[in-house]
Parts: sequence; C-alpha cells; structure tokens
Amino acid sequence: MKNAVIILSGGMDSTVCMAYAGSREYNLYPITFNYGQRHAYEVGQAKKIASYFQSNRHLVVDLAFFREIGGSALTSEAIELPLNRTEKEIGSGIPITYVPFRNGVFLSLAVAYAEAVKAQAIFIGVNALDYSGYPDCRPEFIEAYQTVIDAGTKQASEDKQKLQIITPLLYKTKAEIVKMGMDLAAPLQLTTSCYRGEELACGRCDSCLLRLKGFSEAGFIDPISYESY
Amino acid sequence: MKNAVIILSGGMDSTVCMAYAGSREYNLYPITFNYGQRHAYEVGQAKKIASYFQSNRHLVVDLAFFREIGGSALTSEAIELPLNRTEKEIGSGIPITYVPFRNGVFLSLAVAYAEAVKAQAIFIGVNALDYSGYPDCRPEFIEAYQTVIDAGTKQASEDKQKLQIITPLLYKTKAEIVKMGMDLAAPLQLTTSCYRGEELACGRCDSCLLRLKGFSEAGFIDPISYESY
Repeated sequence: MKNAVIILSGGMDSTVCMAYAGSREYNLYPITFNYGQRHAYEVGQAKKIASYFQSNRHLVVDLAFFREIGGSALTSEAIELPLNRTEKEIGSGIPITYVPFRNGVFLSLAVAYAEAVKAQAIFIGVNALDYSGYPDCRPEFIEAYQTVIDAGTKQASEDKQKLQIITPLLYKTKAEIVKMGMDLAAPLQLTTSCYRGEELACGRCDSCLLRLKGFSEAGFIDPISYESY
Repeated sequence: MKNAVIILSGGMDSTVCMAYAGSREYNLYPITFNYGQRHAYEVGQAKKIASYFQSNRHLVVDLAFFREIGGSALTSEAIELPLNRTEKEIGSGIPITYVPFRNGVFLSLAVAYAEAVKAQAIFIGVNALDYSGYPDCRPEFIEAYQTVIDAGTKQASEDKQKLQIITPLLYKTKAEIVKMGMDLAAPLQLTTSCYRGEELACGRCDSCLLRLKGFSEAGFIDPISYESY
C-alpha cells in the first residue's frame, strides 16, 4: 500500500497530477488550501474533484494568514489583476499575482500531513515552462525542498522511509498537460483556473490565457465555460 | 533600517533570540503560532513578550491544522506526555512530543511574512545541543532551508535582497542560553517552557527538565514558578 499526499488546488495542473498519482496506484490524500484567495471558488471545485476520485480524507486547510500579510493581487482586492497580457509579458518577471512563498507554505503543510498519514510521496503540479514566473515553481526550489525533507522529518531521519516530492508536470508545456489529462481521463470539466474566481472564467487573466493556449495547442476544446464565448 | 521576523513561541529560547535581534538593531516583527498546542498558554506569554519589546506588528497565526492531523503528545490529549525522563532518555531518539515538520511549517510562514515586511533576516531559536531530538532543529535542516529560500522567494531571486535564517542559539548549551538571556536582559520572567501549559510549570516534562538544568548549570534562579517548589 502506497500513500500519497496531493496538493490539490482545484485547477487543471493539480487535477492532472491527482489522476497521474491515482494511475500509479497510490492511495490519494488530497490537501487543499483556503488561503483567502480571490478565486476561493477553486476550493469548492477541489472538493468535487476529491469526491470524483473517491479519495481518502480530503484535508482543507484554512489559512487566513496570506490575506493578513497581503501584497498580492490574488489575496487583495485593492490590487488589480493584470488582464489581456501577451505571452511575452506573462513570461517576463514575477507578476503581482505572486503570493509570498506560497508553494513553500503549501509544501510544508503537505509534508506534515504526509508524515501523519505515512505517505511515501507528495505530488505537486508545479510547471516551469508555461507558468507565471513564480520562483517557487522552479526545479531548483523543488530540489532544495527535497533536501529539507530528508534532513527535517522524523520519517526520513529515523524511520528511514523516504518521502519524495514528485512533480510529473515540471517540464511539460500546457498543451502536454492537457493531453496528459485527456489520456488519464482526468475530470477537467470540474477544474477551474481563472483568477477572478467566478463560475464563468474570464478568459483574460494570465491563468485563463495559459490554459486556453494549452487547449488550443493540444487541439482539444476546454470543457469549462468562459464569459466571452 | 533592518527588519527581522522572529519566530516567537513564548518560550525561553525564542525570547533570548528576540532580545539578541533587538540588540543587533533590527526592527522586530515577531510571529507566533497558535497551533492547537497543549501549552497554548505560551501564546499569551508571547503576546506579553512582544509588548515588552515594543515590537512592530505581532502576527499570531491560527493553525488548526496540527491538531487535525494529530499524532503528537503536544497536540493530542489522547497521547500522554512523558514525565521525569533522565537526560539520557531525553537525548535518545525522537520523542512522542514531535509535531510533524513543525519548524518546516513555522519557517515557511515566517519566510512569507518576511517577504511581506521586506525583512533581511529570520531569527529562530533552534538548538542542537540541549534539545529534544527533533529533526527539524538540526543544523542540516536549517542549511537546507536557506537554500530553499534562496531559490524560492521573489526577494532573493528577483529583488536580490538576501533573506537569511539566523540561529544564534544553534550550538549553545541550555546554560549558555540562560547566561545569554541574562546578559541581554531578556524578560525570562515572562517566558514559559512547560508542555503542560499551566501557569505553574510542572518541572517534570522534558522541556521543564532541560530548562531547570540550564538554570542550575548557569548558576541562576529561574524567575518563573514551579508546582513542586
């Protein structure tokens, strides 16, 4: 029996990760963060996705913290979401949607949960190609984090059971992620990517633009609904 | 102007760290975690200590998470606290008071807070000599975490402003920490260490035993009150 914690946002990438982990016969322990994000709509979708996979206990962690510290367009209505940016603009620099060290925080809580359920793996859908330029999505961040787990957990240091971060999407384009999701029959119709966080996706924020580009290049129709269509 | 985030539990070590950071002329941004610990009494003491230092915003983070995942004598009343252990017993292996990856979680939130307040340093009172054997207190864990910060934060990767973990107590004995606290006039009378978390310390849990040994070896009287005295 292999257990895996899946960092599940309710977005496409984490859902494809979840489908991938399921296909590798892990028992799935999804963890989702309700961190005051503008698009808290995704938390409800994550719950539907966890049910869809009939996963084990779905842990939804309430973290008012990020809204309290502020400083990101994703956790503050006072900062406007950038819209209609070009591919080149999205690819340059760290955008105002950066939430300070978000993946660092999410991974740390996932590691603690993994120790509690004796998981051997943590799946996280980070991607270093068609992504928003967040530093905590890069391969060097994930590699360094693995060293932290090896040094700082009871499981790795005393019980000698490895706890591995697995990043199946790290070097994939968004189009490849869409294809992978289709191959794995991931419930993409339940996923949401839009930063605005309404039932109809805006089609204009960085996240919608990356997603639409992925579907377009993969040659599939996105099963979710957009405002402008 | 230098800013520092201090991980402040309300215990002696973190309070000595806070006094040390203050003596180095940092603006102090303490962060405290209310994580469902048996000894939540320490959170109240941390608030008094933050006031004592007239520090900037004291961030108290509510994290129901650790109690939800369980598995530690510090977050579950169903698991008994070990009492009256010998020094040798305390020094051998990881005890049942280990909270899964607690310092990993605390550091990650401290890093996020540090990015928000543009701090150059995070002070954490980990100690690898007179400590409870927790893997997330060891030098190799802290070193690995520094690499994670360098790779995964906006501040280090784009703004090129270093964010350094500083561990002034890492290689000190408990007696040396007591002396350092006295030298710095740290308000040790406001600190609490007991895992039981009542106003009178029990004097028998690992944490009380380490503290009493430190005061005894340093030749000072502990200013807090114990049940058995």
